Amino acid sequence: MVRLAPPGHGRIEFARTLEVDVGGGEFNVGYACARLGLRAGFISKLPDNPVARIILNHARAVGMDVSHVALEKFDGVGRKGRVGLNFTEVGTGVRASVTMYDRGHSSISQMKPEEMDWNAIFGKEGAAWLHTGGILASLSDNSAAVTKAALQAARAAGTVTSYDLNFRSKLWSSEKAIAVTKEIIPHVQVLIGNEEDFQKVLGFEVEGAKADLRELPVVAYKRMVERVVEAFPHIQAVGTTLREVKSGLVNNWGAILWHDGKFHEARQFPDLEIEDRVGGGDGFSSGIAYGFLKGMKPEDVVNFGAAHGALLQTTRGDTSQVGLEEVMHVMKGGSARIQR
Amino acid sequence: MVRLAPPGHGRIEFARTLEVDVGGGEFNVGYACARLGLRAGFISKLPDNPVARIILNHARAVGMDVSHVALEKFDGVGRKGRVGLNFTEVGTGVRASVTMYDRGHSSISQMKPEEMDWNAIFGKEGAAWLHTGGILASLSDNSAAVTKAALQAARAAGTVTSYDLNFRSKLWSSEKAIAVTKEIIPHVQVLIGNEEDFQKVLGFEVEGAKADLRELPVVAYKRMVERVVEAFPHIQAVGTTLREVKSGLVNNWGAILWHDGKFHEARQFPDLEIEDRVGGGDGFSSGIAYGFLKGMKPEDVVNFGAAHGALLQTTRGDTSQVGLEEVMHVMKGGSARIQR
Amino acid sequence: MVRLAPPGHGRIEFARTLEVDVGGGEFNVGYACARLGLRAGFISKLPDNPVARIILNHARAVGMDVSHVALEKFDGVGRKGRVGLNFTEVGTGVRASVTMYDRGHSSISQMKPEEMDWNAIFGKEGAAWLHTGGILASLSDNSAAVTKAALQAARAAGTVTSYDLNFRSKLWSSEKAIAVTKEIIPHVQVLIGNEEDFQKVLGFEVEGAKADLRELPVVAYKRMVERVVEAFPHIQAVGTTLREVKSGLVNNWGAILWHDGKFHEARQFPDLEIEDRVGGGDGFSSGIAYGFLKGMKPEDVVNFGAAHGALLQTTRGDTSQVGLEEVMHVMKGGSARIQR
Amino acid sequence: MVRLAPPGHGRIEFARTLEVDVGGGEFNVGYACARLGLRAGFISKLPDNPVARIILNHARAVGMDVSHVALEKFDGVGRKGRVGLNFTEVGTGVRASVTMYDRGHSSISQMKPEEMDWNAIFGKEGAAWLHTGGILASLSDNSAAVTKAALQAARAAGTVTSYDLNFRSKLWSSEKAIAVTKEIIPHVQVLIGNEEDFQKVLGFEVEGAKADLRELPVVAYKRMVERVVEAFPHIQAVGTTLREVKSGLVNNWGAILWHDGKFHEARQFPDLEIEDRVGGGDGFSSGIAYGFLKGMKPEDVVNFGAAHGALLQTTRGDTSQVGLEEVMHVMKGGSARIQR
Amino acid sequence: MVRLAPPGHGRIEFARTLEVDVGGGEFNVGYACARLGLRAGFISKLPDNPVARIILNHARAVGMDVSHVALEKFDGVGRKGRVGLNFTEVGTGVRASVTMYDRGHSSISQMKPEEMDWNAIFGKEGAAWLHTGGILASLSDNSAAVTKAALQAARAAGTVTSYDLNFRSKLWSSEKAIAVTKEIIPHVQVLIGNEEDFQKVLGFEVEGAKADLRELPVVAYKRMVERVVEAFPHIQAVGTTLREVKSGLVNNWGAILWHDGKFHEARQFPDLEIEDRVGGGDGFSSGIAYGFLKGMKPEDVVNFGAAHGALLQTTRGDTSQVGLEEVMHVMKGGSARIQR
Amino acid sequence: MVRLAPPGHGRIEFARTLEVDVGGGEFNVGYACARLGLRAGFISKLPDNPVARIILNHARAVGMDVSHVALEKFDGVGRKGRVGLNFTEVGTGVRASVTMYDRGHSSISQMKPEEMDWNAIFGKEGAAWLHTGGILASLSDNSAAVTKAALQAARAAGTVTSYDLNFRSKLWSSEKAIAVTKEIIPHVQVLIGNEEDFQKVLGFEVEGAKADLRELPVVAYKRMVERVVEAFPHIQAVGTTLREVKSGLVNNWGAILWHDGKFHEARQFPDLEIEDRVGGGDGFSSGIAYGFLKGMKPEDVVNFGAAHGALLQTTRGDTSQVGLEEVMHVMKGGSARIQR
Repeated sequence: MVRLAPPGHGRIEFARTLEVDVGGGEFNVGYACARLGLRAGFISKLPDNPVARIILNHARAVGMDVSHVALEKFDGVGRKGRVGLNFTEVGTGVRASVTMYDRGHSSISQMKPEEMDWNAIFGKEGAAWLHTGGILASLSDNSAAVTKAALQAARAAGTVTSYDLNFRSKLWSSEKAIAVTKEIIPHVQVLIGNEEDFQKVLGFEVEGAKADLRELPVVAYKRMVERVVEAFPHIQAVGTTLREVKSGLVNNWGAILWHDGKFHEARQFPDLEIEDRVGGGDGFSSGIAYGFLKGMKPEDVVNFGAAHGALLQTTRGDTSQVGLEEVMHVMKGGSARIQR
Repeated sequence: MVRLAPPGHGRIEFARTLEVDVGGGEFNVGYACARLGLRAGFISKLPDNPVARIILNHARAVGMDVSHVALEKFDGVGRKGRVGLNFTEVGTGVRASVTMYDRGHSSISQMKPEEMDWNAIFGKEGAAWLHTGGILASLSDNSAAVTKAALQAARAAGTVTSYDLNFRSKLWSSEKAIAVTKEIIPHVQVLIGNEEDFQKVLGFEVEGAKADLRELPVVAYKRMVERVVEAFPHIQAVGTTLREVKSGLVNNWGAILWHDGKFHEARQFPDLEIEDRVGGGDGFSSGIAYGFLKGMKPEDVVNFGAAHGALLQTTRGDTSQVGLEEVMHVMKGGSARIQR
Repeated sequence: MVRLAPPGHGRIEFARTLEVDVGGGEFNVGYACARLGLRAGFISKLPDNPVARIILNHARAVGMDVSHVALEKFDGVGRKGRVGLNFTEVGTGVRASVTMYDRGHSSISQMKPEEMDWNAIFGKEGAAWLHTGGILASLSDNSAAVTKAALQAARAAGTVTSYDLNFRSKLWSSEKAIAVTKEIIPHVQVLIGNEEDFQKVLGFEVEGAKADLRELPVVAYKRMVERVVEAFPHIQAVGTTLREVKSGLVNNWGAILWHDGKFHEARQFPDLEIEDRVGGGDGFSSGIAYGFLKGMKPEDVVNFGAAHGALLQTTRGDTSQVGLEEVMHVMKGGSARIQR
Repeated sequence: MVRLAPPGHGRIEFARTLEVDVGGGEFNVGYACARLGLRAGFISKLPDNPVARIILNHARAVGMDVSHVALEKFDGVGRKGRVGLNFTEVGTGVRASVTMYDRGHSSISQMKPEEMDWNAIFGKEGAAWLHTGGILASLSDNSAAVTKAALQAARAAGTVTSYDLNFRSKLWSSEKAIAVTKEIIPHVQVLIGNEEDFQKVLGFEVEGAKADLRELPVVAYKRMVERVVEAFPHIQAVGTTLREVKSGLVNNWGAILWHDGKFHEARQFPDLEIEDRVGGGDGFSSGIAYGFLKGMKPEDVVNFGAAHGALLQTTRGDTSQVGLEEVMHVMKGGSARIQR
Repeated sequence: MVRLAPPGHGRIEFARTLEVDVGGGEFNVGYACARLGLRAGFISKLPDNPVARIILNHARAVGMDVSHVALEKFDGVGRKGRVGLNFTEVGTGVRASVTMYDRGHSSISQMKPEEMDWNAIFGKEGAAWLHTGGILASLSDNSAAVTKAALQAARAAGTVTSYDLNFRSKLWSSEKAIAVTKEIIPHVQVLIGNEEDFQKVLGFEVEGAKADLRELPVVAYKRMVERVVEAFPHIQAVGTTLREVKSGLVNNWGAILWHDGKFHEARQFPDLEIEDRVGGGDGFSSGIAYGFLKGMKPEDVVNFGAAHGALLQTTRGDTSQVGLEEVMHVMKGGSARIQR
Repeated sequence: MVRLAPPGHGRIEFARTLEVDVGGGEFNVGYACARLGLRAGFISKLPDNPVARIILNHARAVGMDVSHVALEKFDGVGRKGRVGLNFTEVGTGVRASVTMYDRGHSSISQMKPEEMDWNAIFGKEGAAWLHTGGILASLSDNSAAVTKAALQAARAAGTVTSYDLNFRSKLWSSEKAIAVTKEIIPHVQVLIGNEEDFQKVLGFEVEGAKADLRELPVVAYKRMVERVVEAFPHIQAVGTTLREVKSGLVNNWGAILWHDGKFHEARQFPDLEIEDRVGGGDGFSSGIAYGFLKGMKPEDVVNFGAAHGALLQTTRGDTSQVGLEEVMHVMKGGSARIQR
């Protein structure tokens, strides 16, 4: 998606200019991996127009492979697919950030599984890791099918698969989510999700999470994860970020990872100063992928993911502007003292 | 529509920020009339979201009546209508300006005639003039029906009707345009269109217009208009602008108006310096409406329309930023000497 | 007034660009009420020039009625009235925000009571609420007379009147303020003011407020209000905001309302993150007006006012960019968790 | 004055930001002389506030002496003087540039002759040249007296005096101008003025200039100058620029200088491309001062002045951003071929 | 190089912000070829710092191969190489554009031939075309050696070589240029250069070119080329652009190409409107490369090159923002009429 | 140096525009003193180009004397000196601010002591205070010699000397620093430095400072200072700021001053909100100079310095935008309550 955001903490309704950025769950994860030094790409379908080229150029600039992005003709009046847009406000104080999707009828939501050459992607010398999630699955029956096909193909080729449950009530009902995800989850190895996700997308019942999600009781979360991995024993890791919203620009931040029967909690980031909180979760997911791919120990993986997510929130836009050295510095508790 | 344009003469593909403006044929005409001092409004349907409120605020700021804009809920994933967008580039030199529509699935394109209370709009103390045109008619069967219903209701109430043929090959084929417009034209009193429009929308054959439209032979145009008004004797006026594109920012500019059996040509604007050419035609149309409503003589009407259109091209954005006094000054041949 | 402010936290002296906004106590209250869905307008006098049109357009954009704004010719060299300006700096850290008025010789300060048709404003189907205050009263003898005439006419027509005492030592002395306000206060039903205001504008003696106003002892304030309503028994409500300045961008925030013999304190907003603190007080006043007009209970009125004031401080500029739903969310203690 | 202008060719009424610049006839001339390498300063009175400091900093940045600028306290409500403002639009196409003064009640317009120590300015090692003009003289009786006092003091000290007649009908009537200027002209040695100025300010009758000033017949101008210098034989030079306005951004440009009984015409700049035409005339005046002070031949003086004025119009803002070498290059007919 | 330019037509000395772009002769040619759809890359050496990453990201965004850019550590105090900078002003009117280099001690100027693996670049499946030129050759003895080594290696591998003579008197003397270029020219097949270049870099004597280069007599140029190809019979094509500078933003534009004994002149672009003239020549060079590589006829090659160069001058920055279709449209004489 | 910084909290690598500011240790101190009302200037050497003029204009704007800045010709390719640049990022959250020098081969680093007329600077009616420091000394052997020569000349003329040790490991090794500084320290009266500086530049051994510098144990610092002044008994004052980095934009801030055998600690600024932390230390140094020059008591000197440093961090850019009154207000514990 192309993200359009008023400068600073401005509101969409009163915007005279909009900053142009690029984002989207899977995209952000691939982009961040490319910046960390991994070979990375993304799979999508876009119309052949300048708005789509914003996305392609943005991806290529950090070295992402765009050869698996299908292009179709664009007509502008709805007979063909369009580029999904995302109007974003960066909130402050008692006013929340807002992401208002205008992603209906996007090319990707209309793509069918058979349009993609899965073998070329995951086959010999293909991708080592596939990350996707519930937002893509929710867009349409086509995209649910694409999600499943991609995960299946990946697993068949021995590619690690991760999946961010990411429930959004605007996109689908819990019933629909559960029905669709049931088909998908068998192909997922690394699961990203919070308690609400487990409830709404996987059908587990929550215990003890406050309705407004200000505080996530870690204990309850752990109990839930244990039930999840019991139900889906093929899952190898489950992670989530822990965010307490103190204000638009100050959150408490942390993360937790279950792996091989044990929980690993990242060091806390109390009163984390935020520039733009969008992309924090994807920062965690890409950090997890990086950590596992590099063979880090699970306690390092979760710390790497949390530090990466914290750093992702120090810049405007969904996608990473940080580098490996910086993540390492923050992961080890390094301060924000000026570098010169 | 909300218009998104890179600053200056930038390109969409390389834009880091987009300027937010509002535009659309009928909207621009109503907006300009409000600035000239007329009571004006617009009829439309919009989703209830902040992007739509950009349009509503923009309209109200100059005193437009927005009470005939229907609102519907917005969902962002395509199950409901959206706000049409328009990505615009202001070209320069040998590079043309571009308007790239992303208007598929807009709320207005899905509106049905019965959703609007035509009587409230045109009835007692209702609107004196209705302006619409071929772009609206082309969007969908619904919008063709709305176009026709509006014109019918207007005529039934004694409201003057004007219609800008505005053929766009991207929106529909000539065949479709001719079929739809045949139903519409009987309700139109003032027709705006160039030779290509007469051919593609009304089915008349052109003689002598150069393919690339750089030069419009006025003589051929007149001959064509005569055939049009012979075919549709209920039409009371036919007008068009005359634009020769010398470069992105320098055009020759003029206008011609047929009224009551006679042609009236506006004074020429050779080497017209242009800031943003979009909205020039709507400036002509609104000038024509203003002139006739104020009872100007036809030779003044066409000059007022051309001067208004010339001034509209001195500001960025589709909508008018000029005032009545300025139009009068330019219409009378006043220079651009500094005012202090 | 037109407000001119350097971007970000820049200083006037070093500004290369100034952001253009619109503000002023009464204006802000009317503007916010229009956004909350009430019919609202403002009474003023302005020169007929483009700077004044910035104000008119700004007001109309949210649906405000500007038909009671008188216009006069403008000459630019001081023989006629001008638009008041307000150079504003948004401070940060240990540096305070600054509003530097350049409002001498404004048209409104020269307007006389007889220039306005009070009956048209407050008469049949006229305004339900009039808000004004001490800044207008201080500008000149003319504006003091206008303030009084407006309040008198409003009360005569049964319109509710509210008045923000708003003492500014730069504008007048305490002696002058007391003398002028004595004539005004009998026509006021809802009084907005802090302890300093009661002392400097009404002549009451303060007890226990710290000189630098960092902390307002609520107990002392209550005692003071009791003396005020004893002295002016026609007053139906007295309210004020409670602000402790921790830094330029972090304040403690709250509000208190006396109504019908009882005090109602709003929930606290400790460490309120601020984008621009100007307009917070007017947010409280407009919230109070909205609450009473909608028949809320007094404890809800004060919470609505405080939440509205808190939200008003999350955007740049004096005027509201928030909506009713958001106020309700914050009023009920809703968090700033991202909305998507 | 501080100049506030919308970016690009934007309009004041629709401006969301204003660019901050500094300008004013005498100021511009002094500023340009400082950039050309002369010792220069300006005489004025300003309030002690950050808006005034914008002017002082701007002047000092190029080395201007500000020690003869008196400062007074500022109150913001009109009991003390303010900084004159100038809202400027840079026009384009058929739309003229606009300078809308908001300079009423400025400190300088209220200054009296005795507030300035003229001896310190023009006495031993004092200024070699004094430039002033009709705008200052028109502001008030005080400023007329200041203008005269300055010229008298300058002449008494042997300082060369130049005066730009600069008639502005908004500022005073022709009658008033003639009455005031009669007292001033005996102290002027170098006169800058066009035919309209001679008529409106000095009372001479024009022959043959077109009302809209698009074309200045040079022959008639020369005849007029001859009558002027016959009437005021103490005048040593008379100059004016010749500007034909083809569009907002394209003018024909030239200049003419009478000196010692002979006319010298600068080389023509046909189709001069303009970035911002404000300051062009002051560029000519400062070029004339520089040329004479450096002992150039009159034919070089007028060419230097015209080239300097042409270059001044290649940058936004009233004040010079060019250097001596560039003036020399253009004066000699050098092209705009890229320098690298 | 990273290019830093004041917005609009601003001056470096008065800039408060600088736009960041990327440019440099060889880089621009490779970049444009990538946009036209060719496989392209560039060879360079850069320090490992964020300023260098601006260049790398810019290149990759359009798909350029950066694998032949060597990286070295950066220290910031001159003990290691730096990124060359280029401060650019876009002139207007009588004021020229300026490119002020700050490229001393750049990493590339310190690179030695043996640091690059020429075989990997030009060997099997290697580059089909190498473009370089006199600016690189002039920077240092190292870079002259690199230039020669690259051309030699290219020719040895059968790669086509083109060379832009590009004499810059600030970089080296004519004597030095002639001495160095003598070693280089035997390895060049396609020569880009104007008359001055032939004189200053190759040592030929010019006849009839005006000193200020406003008009290039085509006849003299042709005579010169004939002497050049007689002297260097291995050269297969010689081309140059023809630019007459009418003003900063209006130039006459054309191009001429000698190939296989015949001259081919591109169609004229009289009064070409320019946004930013930098990169026009590189646009011609890359067009020539593209044309020859695609097997166009020489008369098409020169027209493609001239059209491409004209389009390159319609955007800010040195590098191409245009696409193949647009070049084809302009090459065929297509107008700048709006596209929608 | 000219400082180039992405807007807001943007990163250099992704910057599309850079804000232009001016900074450098000694420069900042002189600049701030000029703003506080002292006569101030700076000594340097610059190339004669527009980038250098940015520095000169910036200095002169606040009244700094630039007559002791030597100018040399500029060539852009490294045969002559250049202007040092400083790419700066303002960090936030867990991401640190960055200043990346590109100052190699600057004119000042190549200046020799004999190029400056020290007698003109410090002689009769010369400077009362000289501030310099370890960064200048580190640049080259030339600049070390210049540093020493300046201090010597100053002391010889009775000028007070202050020196900021400012160790930067990127600029030189501790060994080199100790060797060079040994020659310099005898001429220094007021020493600015933290524990690390004493260790790395003066060769003292640290006790108890944490490696990452988050917390400076004041007790250990005092012990160290006592050893320093014992070793260099000619030193009259030693000061440092105390900064604990809580996040990019929130630091604890304070300062400590040894004078005449006693320590004076400034009041604490806990949770100091920061706009841009660069220049804070120079704000302290200039405050110290101002305080001593004005004869303040040492306990006031340190509080003035700390308050000045705190205010310096409320604006973007290295140089002061604050005034004397504001420092006094903050020094006395005044709040950030809005000023109007």
